[in-house]
Amino acid sequence: MNSAAVIDLSKSPHATVQPVAPGRVEVAEGFWDDRMRSMRSHGLERQFEQCELTGRLRNFERAAGRLEGEFEGRYYNDSDVYKWLEAASYALARAPSAALRARVDGVIEAIAAAQRPDGYINTYFSGPRTSWRYRNLTDEHELYCMGHLIQAGVAHRRSTGSDRLFEVVVRAAEHICETFGPESRPEPDGHPGIELALVELARETGNAAHLRQAVFFLDQRGADPPNLSGLHYHQDHAPVREQRDADGHSVRLTYLAAAMADAAMDTGEAEMLEASIRLWESAYERRAYVTGGLGSRYQGEAFGADYELPNDRAYAETCAAVGGIFWNARLLAATGDARYADWLETALYNGALVGVSPDGGEYFYANPLAADPQPTPDDQGGVHSSGAQQTVGGHQRQPWYDTACCPPNIARLLLSLAGYAYGVSPGALWVHQYLPGRVEATLPDGGFMTLRVATRYPWHGDVELMVEDAPDSPVDLRLRIPSWADGASLEVDGSREAVMPGSYAAMRGVWSAGTTVRLRLPMDVRLVASHPRVQANTGRAAIARGPLIYCIEATDHPESSLDTLVLGPNSDLEARDEPDLLGGLTTIRGSAGVAVQVRSDELYARFEGGKPELTGSTALTAIPYFAWANRTPGAMRVWIPYVDY
Amino acid sequence: MNSAAVIDLSKSPHATVQPVAPGRVEVAEGFWDDRMRSMRSHGLERQFEQCELTGRLRNFERAAGRLEGEFEGRYYNDSDVYKWLEAASYALARAPSAALRARVDGVIEAIAAAQRPDGYINTYFSGPRTSWRYRNLTDEHELYCMGHLIQAGVAHRRSTGSDRLFEVVVRAAEHICETFGPESRPEPDGHPGIELALVELARETGNAAHLRQAVFFLDQRGADPPNLSGLHYHQDHAPVREQRDADGHSVRLTYLAAAMADAAMDTGEAEMLEASIRLWESAYERRAYVTGGLGSRYQGEAFGADYELPNDRAYAETCAAVGGIFWNARLLAATGDARYADWLETALYNGALVGVSPDGGEYFYANPLAADPQPTPDDQGGVHSSGAQQTVGGHQRQPWYDTACCPPNIARLLLSLAGYAYGVSPGALWVHQYLPGRVEATLPDGGFMTLRVATRYPWHGDVELMVEDAPDSPVDLRLRIPSWADGASLEVDGSREAVMPGSYAAMRGVWSAGTTVRLRLPMDVRLVASHPRVQANTGRAAIARGPLIYCIEATDHPESSLDTLVLGPNSDLEARDEPDLLGGLTTIRGSAGVAVQVRSDELYARFEGGKPELTGSTALTAIPYFAWANRTPGAMRVWIPYVDY
Repeated sequence: MNSAAVIDLSKSPHATVQPVAPGRVEVAEGFWDDRMRSMRSHGLERQFEQCELTGRLRNFERAAGRLEGEFEGRYYNDSDVYKWLEAASYALARAPSAALRARVDGVIEAIAAAQRPDGYINTYFSGPRTSWRYRNLTDEHELYCMGHLIQAGVAHRRSTGSDRLFEVVVRAAEHICETFGPESRPEPDGHPGIELALVELARETGNAAHLRQAVFFLDQRGADPPNLSGLHYHQDHAPVREQRDADGHSVRLTYLAAAMADAAMDTGEAEMLEASIRLWESAYERRAYVTGGLGSRYQGEAFGADYELPNDRAYAETCAAVGGIFWNARLLAATGDARYADWLETALYNGALVGVSPDGGEYFYANPLAADPQPTPDDQGGVHSSGAQQTVGGHQRQPWYDTACCPPNIARLLLSLAGYAYGVSPGALWVHQYLPGRVEATLPDGGFMTLRVATRYPWHGDVELMVEDAPDSPVDLRLRIPSWADGASLEVDGSREAVMPGSYAAMRGVWSAGTTVRLRLPMDVRLVASHPRVQANTGRAAIARGPLIYCIEATDHPESSLDTLVLGPNSDLEARDEPDLLGGLTTIRGSAGVAVQVRSDELYARFEGGKPELTGSTALTAIPYFAWANRTPGAMRVWIPYVDY
Repeated sequence: MNSAAVIDLSKSPHATVQPVAPGRVEVAEGFWDDRMRSMRSHGLERQFEQCELTGRLRNFERAAGRLEGEFEGRYYNDSDVYKWLEAASYALARAPSAALRARVDGVIEAIAAAQRPDGYINTYFSGPRTSWRYRNLTDEHELYCMGHLIQAGVAHRRSTGSDRLFEVVVRAAEHICETFGPESRPEPDGHPGIELALVELARETGNAAHLRQAVFFLDQRGADPPNLSGLHYHQDHAPVREQRDADGHSVRLTYLAAAMADAAMDTGEAEMLEASIRLWESAYERRAYVTGGLGSRYQGEAFGADYELPNDRAYAETCAAVGGIFWNARLLAATGDARYADWLETALYNGALVGVSPDGGEYFYANPLAADPQPTPDDQGGVHSSGAQQTVGGHQRQPWYDTACCPPNIARLLLSLAGYAYGVSPGALWVHQYLPGRVEATLPDGGFMTLRVATRYPWHGDVELMVEDAPDSPVDLRLRIPSWADGASLEVDGSREAVMPGSYAAMRGVWSAGTTVRLRLPMDVRLVASHPRVQANTGRAAIARGPLIYCIEATDHPESSLDTLVLGPNSDLEARDEPDLLGGLTTIRGSAGVAVQVRSDELYARFEGGKPELTGSTALTAIPYFAWANRTPGAMRVWIPYVDY
């Protein structure tokens, strides 16, 4: 118990780097421990209350025939309960809690009671709607929901050792395998999820049919005639192995492409892996926000065209950043390529983390990179726009959403985070992410190695890794040098090693206990530019430091509209530790030019030259993007005009 | 016959300037005559074919019981036939055509046969769906369709003198007045249109009940409990008299706010007019594209927040530019304020005209201000996104759309355009728009004045107005000086008059035949800047000349990606007449700096200073925005980076 992986690649013949299970990773006090603690102690509680309040739990009681009344909410609401269970299972693995365990057991009992004798389960399609089962897989998410059930069941078994939920899950999987296949029904689900779930289930059951079923579903997209109406929205416009662009609903694409990479590690199908990589290149080399957010359009919650990355109308759903982390983790495992660990880190510290409040109890759905306090109504006639809720005072985190996919998604990510930090391959231990604590790693070829890590990352760039235990044979210790870390240095017992940003620095040797590796990542403040085809960012720079993207908020600049502030060569940006601000963070301080507000308030006027007229300068304060919208509501900008003034 | 107005304010007690009916306006050879001719000779024909092809006409035959089979298409398709009829009626008034007249009569006959005995008409809600009538006014557009029927009937009567369609219309109006009202059903239509129609019908029938009914519908928005689900999308979030921001579906807002101004001219309700003006200030002072396009969001086909004006994802539906013209025309008539004539002109020459091909037969629905040839799929699961169709090769005009509101909308605008050029008020003749030809104006207090206008506007800025006939008493001749026309000059028989851009220059006198007024509008090339809060345009300028906004297209710049071209102080932009290009137009030529493509192809990289590194310069060619997408498909940009290089 407690050593089981989130992604268990120990028997996947085509994996390059196996993740070290979170149960083998100790997370010491620091950045992530704080956040995991908030989620465990407060966030999970709030989410459970919401599941009760909104009838999500009552729906299971009703489906089990124990409660009268109508189904409440939306037809995909079961999935939120399953994701909460998955998150709670990870929490139980990290810190035993009798109260949480009892609550988890209660929910599992209700789920088991609601399951139909043939293994099917969905509380909406029960009672009077039983005959509606599978009438519309394009839109009605039944396999998506069961996918989350399966993920929860696998997580619960690995985290607690109990088979109670896993038995439910195996029955559901058997039902799915009987119902869908080359000889029976062909449709996949309009919302991917079942594919990732079945791949991981196959690793737990050892049943090759589960893996085959996952691959079957993957290959049912892009059929002729189409199974899902052929839309890009559902990634049904072409067979997945032939898809080239990250199109359509962004969360769906991340789940789908993650499953493609995942399945390929077990099947060895190079074509499937290559297609996933091709989609990744489209998503992260041409369509991703600097925060790791994905999805440029509210319309269809979709990816935009190449370089279409509006800041104010970034959809960048929290779930897409999280799904992107799942995807990057699998491509990293499949290939060992540092670029996936880089984007995983970016999404983690920025695009995903921004989705949750410091106390773990409030959440963003959409994540713009520029915001104004004015409410922008997004209520649409007959259009589902879950993430578009806006409150007066602007974009604020909410305790819950009508479509509540994001809150439990960020919960399950945070509570399994330790599983994304380390990897092993024959004769090698990989450090993907830097967090203080300890890792006990069993190498696939048998060696055992323990490292203790001390760091105040991401606020400080020094990482000290001390070998506590190591095999007698040589081991490659592979440390990721982030792509932003120009000037990083690495010393082993005082002797310098070569490093190259954007790759793993590999040190080979027979390690002895007590050996200390010192990695120094440069934490200078830097400005980031966009590709010139990103029209939204022409003439603008973003402030960054380490893995963090920064932003400016109105509350720190009461005397100037944010749109009048410009960066320039004399901005003299410097980091400042502020232990009392929002639980402790490093701000970036400097000076900004203040442009003339406007000669008139005209929407369009004669152009008066390339440089704004400056009236003076003012103090500039930037805070990490993930920390915005936690103080007085107001405007926010990530990309700031830069002028050679 | 032929003198009847599009908007007949001859008996509206609270109008300031009455439009001169198109039948009193001769349009001589030139810019608009070319376009009206194409629409009359080719566009109307193509649209009729599409109405036949897509079953829009068969639906009437079926509703009349003359044809078997199911209704074809969407439930609001009748409205396209009505708008075509309105356009065709204007065409008949300008140039008799036995063939067109026979076709119009045939359609009218089918409509009359399809009308139910109680006056109701909608070919979808007939036969087996008769009992569905008015089951869902929020979404199902029945009154919207009948509104277009009424507009067609009024136009047909005024244009041809025939009562055949008008009789149908009056029966439909009576049915509506009986069905909806304070004592009966309260709901307005989710899509405005009926309100404008009933106001104009009241002017034709003289029946005050029709005007009352229009005001009743206007005031049914924002009720408590809501009639239309209370959404901004339907402008149902507040009573119209209290609405402050141009929110929700942009076409709907323009039709609604136009009707508010229109009704106020007959009722004298200052509150209604003020609310329309307030909405106009929101729409045109904070939310309009430089082209006069409206609607920043695909999502909900909606207005965005203040200054939210993305270029690549501008929705800017052709119908919204057209609806904006209707709205501006009414506010101009209500107030005589030149700002409405300015935006009317901007929308006419840019945001509306771009919606139609030079031959009148192909149409844009959405009108981006930046486009790339790459297809950007916009197919959405279950989401209506009519304007989002994209073809391989990028954004191209189409012969028709599944939702085909735009083609007949641009047709009815073009064919009634002469009705927007002149106005009269007691003792005054107003020239709102400059086009060559002649106007015969009867002043409301009885005088009669005839002007002949010679101009090559918008290509050239000289306008010569010769008095042919005038009353013996003094008349104010009021010429609009466009807001962009800094340095305009005006001479009457050789003596200089003062002018102020953005206002009407008023010359009072007893005019004698042969007196010539010479207006010289400066046609220098100018650069336009956006308000600094328009984030999409930071560091960018748009090229303009006269009323025309220009753009650059890839086909004129085969050696450089458009994103590498920058304007600067040495761009030396000059106008060049090109009679052989796209039917004859004035291009703008100069030189652009060419920025280094990119050091790498990275999406994000270290920022290397505020100025792009230039590799040299290249010839720049800009063409009018309305003329783009008529040659080799490729990228297009309106807003171009400007650097002080």
